Order: sequence, then C-alpha cells, then structure tokens
Amino acid sequence: MTRGSFISFEGGEGAGKSTQIRRLADRLQSAGHDIVLTREPGGSPGAETIRDLLVNGEADRWSPVTETLLMYAARRDHLERVIRPALDRGAVVLCDRFSDSTRAYQGAGGDAPAALIAALEDHVLGDSIPDLTLIFDLPPAVGLARAAARGGAARFESKGLEFHERLRAGFMAIAQGEPKRCALIDANATPDQVSEAVWTVVSTRLAL
Amino acid sequence: MTRGSFISFEGGEGAGKSTQIRRLADRLQSAGHDIVLTREPGGSPGAETIRDLLVNGEADRWSPVTETLLMYAARRDHLERVIRPALDRGAVVLCDRFSDSTRAYQGAGGDAPAALIAALEDHVLGDSIPDLTLIFDLPPAVGLARAAARGGAARFESKGLEFHERLRAGFMAIAQGEPKRCALIDANATPDQVSEAVWTVVSTRLAL
Ligand SMILES: Nc1ncnc2c1ncn2[C@@H]1O[C@H](COP(=O)(O)OP(=O)(O)OP(=O)(O)O)[C@@H](O)[C@H]1O
Ligand SMILES: Nc1ncnc2c1ncn2[C@@H]1O[C@H](COP(=O)(O)OP(=O)(O)OP(=O)(O)O)[C@@H](O)[C@H]1O
Ligand SMILES: [Mg+2]
Ligand SMILES: [Mg+2]
Repeated sequence: MTRGSFISFEGGEGAGKSTQIRRLADRLQSAGHDIVLTREPGGSPGAETIRDLLVNGEADRWSPVTETLLMYAARRDHLERVIRPALDRGAVVLCDRFSDSTRAYQGAGGDAPAALIAALEDHVLGDSIPDLTLIFDLPPAVGLARAAARGGAARFESKGLEFHERLRAGFMAIAQGEPKRCALIDANATPDQVSEAVWTVVSTRLAL
Repeated sequence: MTRGSFISFEGGEGAGKSTQIRRLADRLQSAGHDIVLTREPGGSPGAETIRDLLVNGEADRWSPVTETLLMYAARRDHLERVIRPALDRGAVVLCDRFSDSTRAYQGAGGDAPAALIAALEDHVLGDSIPDLTLIFDLPPAVGLARAAARGGAARFESKGLEFHERLRAGFMAIAQGEPKRCALIDANATPDQVSEAVWTVVSTRLAL
C-alpha cells in the first residue's frame, strides 16, 4: 500500500485555516478519500493535555524555548499515535498547524534559536514532513479582528500586534525558502475565493 | 559577586537521593550557606504542572522521545526561573535529579536517541551544567523495595526490573565518562554511612 498524503495548514490567528481545512476535508471525502482531519497543538489524547498548558494562561507563562519544547513534545505524540499510523494506511492527513507554526510563533515571533528548532525538526520529525503546506497570509489586524469576533482560547492572540507582524514575516520567509513544499494563499478574500485558491493548489500539486 | 555552586543528585528509584539531599542542605545551611533545595521534574510552578503529566498515569503513556521533550520543557522552565537566578546571586543549588536522569531513564532505559539528548543538552542547557553530580548506586531490587515501602507516584517504578537494570548501567556509564563532574556513591549502606561519603566528596571537590 502506498503512503498517504500529508497536508498542513499554516498562518496567523484568524486567517481562515480551520474554516478552509473543513471545506477541503468535505471535498476530498466526497471524492472517496480516507481523510484524517487533525490539529496542533493537540490531535492525540496526550498532546491535547499538553495543549491545555500551551493555549491557556498568561502570554508570558512560558519562555519561547520552553514553549518550543512543549510544542515538540505534543507534536511527537501526535505523530506517533495519529499522523504516522494514518499515513501508513494510505489516508490523506489534513493538519491544522504543524511544524511551521513553531518556526513562526516561537522562532520569528519569540526568540527561540533557529538552531534549536532545526535540531528538533531533524531529530523529532525525521521524515514526517508535510507533502504540501498551505500558508494563509493576511494582515494581522484583519485576522485578529476575525479571531476576536469568534472567541476561544486567546493566549497567543494576546501577544500584541508587533508579535503578529513578526509572525507574518516568519511565515512569508518559510514560503519563500521552501517553494516546493509550500504555497502562499491570499487569505484576505471571501471564503469561497479562498476555497478555490486552496483547491487549485491541492489539485495541481498532489496526485490524489 | 561570584556564581554559586550547582550540585545534582542522581540515581535510580529509592537510592536515597531525597534523604541525602536534605541532610546535605541542613549541613551547608548550618555552615551559613544560602541553599536552594529543588528537584526535577518540577522545581518551578510551570515545571510542576509538566511534572504532573510525567509522573502519573500508565507506564507507556509517553514514548521515550516525547518524554524526553517534556522533561526538557520542564527543565528549561526550572533553569530560567529558579536555578539560574539562584546561581547568579551566589547560592548553592542542590537539585534532586537533573539532566543525567534523562540520559539514563529516557536514553539508556528507554530508547530515546543519544543524538536527540545531546542536541537538547547543547541547545537547552547551554552552560548550565552541574559543577558536581553525585550518582547514587545500588541494586535496583533494593531501591525498588525501599521506594515501594515509602509509596508515592509510581509511573517509573512500574517499568519492570529489566528497565531498572539498564538505568543503573546508564548512570554507571555517565559516572565513568565524566569523572571530573561526577562521583559514584555506594548507596547500599546505612544513611549515616552514605552521608559521610557525600560529605567527603562535596568537601573535597568544591571550595564552598
Ligand atoms: N475568508 C474569510 N473572510 C471573513 N471571515 C472569515 C473568512 N474565513 C474565516 N472567517 C471567519 O474568521 C474567523 C476565524 O476563522 P478560522 O477559525 O477559520 O481561522 P483560523 O486561521 O483557524 O484561526 P486560529 O489561528 O485562531 O485557529 C471565524 O469566525 C471564521 O468564520
Ligand atoms: N541508606 C538507606 N538505607 C535504607 N533505607 C533508606 C536509605 N536511604 C533512604 N532510605 C529509605 O528508602 C526510601 C527511599 O529513599 P529516598 O526517598 O531518599 O530515595 P530516592 O532516591 O529519593 O527515591 P526516588 O528516586 O523514588 O525519589 C525512603 O523510605 C527512605 O527513608
Ligand atoms: Mg483555527
Ligand atoms: Mg526522591
């Protein structure tokens, strides 16, 4: 049996990742694919308990380095118990945030050293790298306003506009640095327009 | 002001670390030293919340790699918020378990890759390495019987005798590999005999 496909959705707060991942899941499921829709931090029972430590509490509850390590602990559990088994049985795994969020939030947005993050990608992910990463881009003020209107856990939203500008630049740099894996999606458009942009990229790049 | 001294206590379950660290703390405090007695996993409010995930639950709740990352997340918080500030003000920090427990429990006892652990020591600890590490050695069966009689959180105790034999060999290898930093203490003796062995090493090796 061939290994499945691994697609990650990345970008800042309120960019529309969760909205669009559900739409893509529906479309692929209707086409008969075995779909696993999951998210980070979290996605497995153990990782969800770590998520509680990450998304709740004060903005400075954890330093960027500690936060990076907690993110990777959750990611490893999620990989071992959900993502790798799903890919092994040939499923399409759609993951709402993955390793690029650590590069952007803890690396570009915080000040966790790039060398630490690179070492973790190397030793903890191994070859479990997304086949395709969709990076949702829009002005932070627009995304934060959308996220505030929606409500929910707000530890990262509370970090201030300057943080979110660094985040956006961090995601942009990832898209530019790895154009084969990544595609930048203009998220400052209607949900239907964004869905079409997502579908164009997915159907062009992956042989599903 | 000169940096303080950092002493870690290491070894398997029930070896007498917690008993002896209290005795050494009392002795040094009576001699007028500023002492910080702390422990891992835990030692700071954030790290104690991570500790709860580590010491409770099923023996296979976390894989060795996930466990290593959780340990290092807790360790980083503990370092930043307790250990480094104490050393900076000149205190003697006595820590009940530190980085060698990760090498032994997750590395030698589990199968977390040595390269991952080495990368974490490098990027996460930096130069926050103990000045002296006391490694308490005794047959696992003796230590497990002592720990069982005492009671308490038992996730690691439940891992079986073969695991604890690998653990003991792992600690032994650390002591042999870094003889300048480490001293092996024969823990299969009376509490008073062990205290004397500890004092001999501390007073010989450190200029307190
Ligand atoms: N294209 C869009 N235009 C306007 N509003 C949108 C658009 N897409 C999603 N929204 C709304 O914006 C809010 C945030 O969307 P969504 O939860 O999908 O974003 P997200 O990227 O997953 O955010 P987070 O990073 O906080 O999880 C929701 O209330 C959603 O209905
Ligand atoms: N030298 C000794 N001889 C016999 N019993 C001892 C000795 N030292 C400690 N004990 C007893 O053994 C039990 C375990 O000791 P202690 O808690 O100090 O070990 P530990 O190394 O901290 O264990 P753990 O790794 O589980 O934290 C306690 O009940 C303690 O009173
Ligand atoms: Mg979302
Ligand atoms: Mg103890």
